[in-house]
Amino acid sequence: MIEARAVAIYGVGLIGGSVALALRAAGYRGEIIGYGRREEELRRAVERGVIHRYALDAESVAAQAQLHVVCVPVLAMGAVFDALARVVGPDAVMTDVGSTKQSVIAAARQAFGHLPAGFVPAHPIAGTERTGVAAAFSTLYQDRLAILTPTAASADAAIIEVEQLWQACGARTIRMDASHHDDVLAATSHLPHMLAFALVDLLATRPDHDEIFMYAAGGFRDFTRIASSSPVMWRDIALANREAVTANLDALIGRLQALREAIDQQDAEQIETGFRRAKQARDAYLSLTDQTPTP
Amino acid sequence: MIEARAVAIYGVGLIGGSVALALRAAGYRGEIIGYGRREEELRRAVERGVIHRYALDAESVAAQAQLHVVCVPVLAMGAVFDALARVVGPDAVMTDVGSTKQSVIAAARQAFGHLPAGFVPAHPIAGTERTGVAAAFSTLYQDRLAILTPTAASADAAIIEVEQLWQACGARTIRMDASHHDDVLAATSHLPHMLAFALVDLLATRPDHDEIFMYAAGGFRDFTRIASSSPVMWRDIALANREAVTANLDALIGRLQALREAIDQQDAEQIETGFRRAKQARDAYLSLTDQTPTP
Repeated sequence: MIEARAVAIYGVGLIGGSVALALRAAGYRGEIIGYGRREEELRRAVERGVIHRYALDAESVAAQAQLHVVCVPVLAMGAVFDALARVVGPDAVMTDVGSTKQSVIAAARQAFGHLPAGFVPAHPIAGTERTGVAAAFSTLYQDRLAILTPTAASADAAIIEVEQLWQACGARTIRMDASHHDDVLAATSHLPHMLAFALVDLLATRPDHDEIFMYAAGGFRDFTRIASSSPVMWRDIALANREAVTANLDALIGRLQALREAIDQQDAEQIETGFRRAKQARDAYLSLTDQTPTP
Repeated sequence: MIEARAVAIYGVGLIGGSVALALRAAGYRGEIIGYGRREEELRRAVERGVIHRYALDAESVAAQAQLHVVCVPVLAMGAVFDALARVVGPDAVMTDVGSTKQSVIAAARQAFGHLPAGFVPAHPIAGTERTGVAAAFSTLYQDRLAILTPTAASADAAIIEVEQLWQACGARTIRMDASHHDDVLAATSHLPHMLAFALVDLLATRPDHDEIFMYAAGGFRDFTRIASSSPVMWRDIALANREAVTANLDALIGRLQALREAIDQQDAEQIETGFRRAKQARDAYLSLTDQTPTP
């Protein structure tokens, strides 16, 4: 279990709050200290029993903990790393939950002037479209995957401690190269979010948008669920993983143009072939995740 | 309630089978006769208590019923209308469940040589990604919307009988012009399906597709659920509503290109503005449908 006498959570929203709740549910008896910018949210986090106490100054939080979990949006991580770099000693273990890993590693290198041995970047693949500490719950990471992307400088002991952190939260851990992580996640997570936002925004800006949404079917609700996610968090992810996200957008735009042409040319076979391949792939994906495939 | 001594269901899969089950659950005591091409499915429909009996010949089914519900994929409806045109009398009431309405009306006009007074096109906005009679259930239409698009030739009595059919199945009914229906549904239903199929197909054809799907998060499962829908049904819808579907695809491709440029140019404000508008629209949509919006 976690040996640190105190854990610092930077950003106590859905993700950070759920880390705190999961650690407490797993029996962690040390102190959990929150940092954030909005005092009202932090006060609510204390009231809900998510964190023990908080400060609005990242340095004072950093000075009191031995294990540091950075949960702010990825483009805000640089400022937290700056605070950590000013305060923590060489034994501090630091990790983050960012959805992009190369940009976070670059921000840490910038703040510290080098990559600290105690820094082990990570990305738990979990979340809901809800935001804020009110949405946090202790089982968010249960049976989910936490991808660690250790740097060349990461010490073995720090890697193991971060693995134990996520395993205590209920997650399975794997290790992966940061650039490979960013490429894979651009396709499976960042691209769908861009699509969902773009689709809903397209419909929302139609003159007949009220009627449009009135006749939307159940499939639409599921399909667009992720468009209710945090705009700031996803703006940051788009920018932080810019190259992979734009490459994936280009590939998808190409596919949509080809489909559009096939429909326009009434090429029934080409349309059906692509739809059939998609259905087979998704049904196979469901069997991977132990869901019942559709007949 | 339904006065017809026998109801004919053409195409006894998820949609047609659920109509039959809903009618029986609502207390309909007449006979329900199924037509289809695959005898194994029809036999299963009898075994499951969905229909009373079946024939593989549409004309013989048509000759025995007074109310006809056409539930085959939209591009297969022409052949069913041909059979109906050869057999039924002027009192027959006919409806369909097609997701596109102008193409179905054109197919009926082609088969009959005119639009029959007993023909009332309809579209129940309900479904799951599952297919086949095994997926049918009696409450599929409960509290869902059934859009009727009567033609200029539709008799009032026929319109009322079709409304009663859908109300017996638990749906709310509204009337709408067929071309307006096709435009609205292209945006809210057909476009999302095209997108989901295109996205999953894009990922499925990557060389690293196994790994890609392994790291997909929960949001991906919801987002791509509709890509498990019937490829043939959606191929037909794309072709039958070709103009509106390609126009919507063009509009979305334009949005994706603008988003891609904003990310490439690191225009944080433009990215966030679109994401925020989408989140607001979707949260408002959820409150329309009595769901809890996300904070």
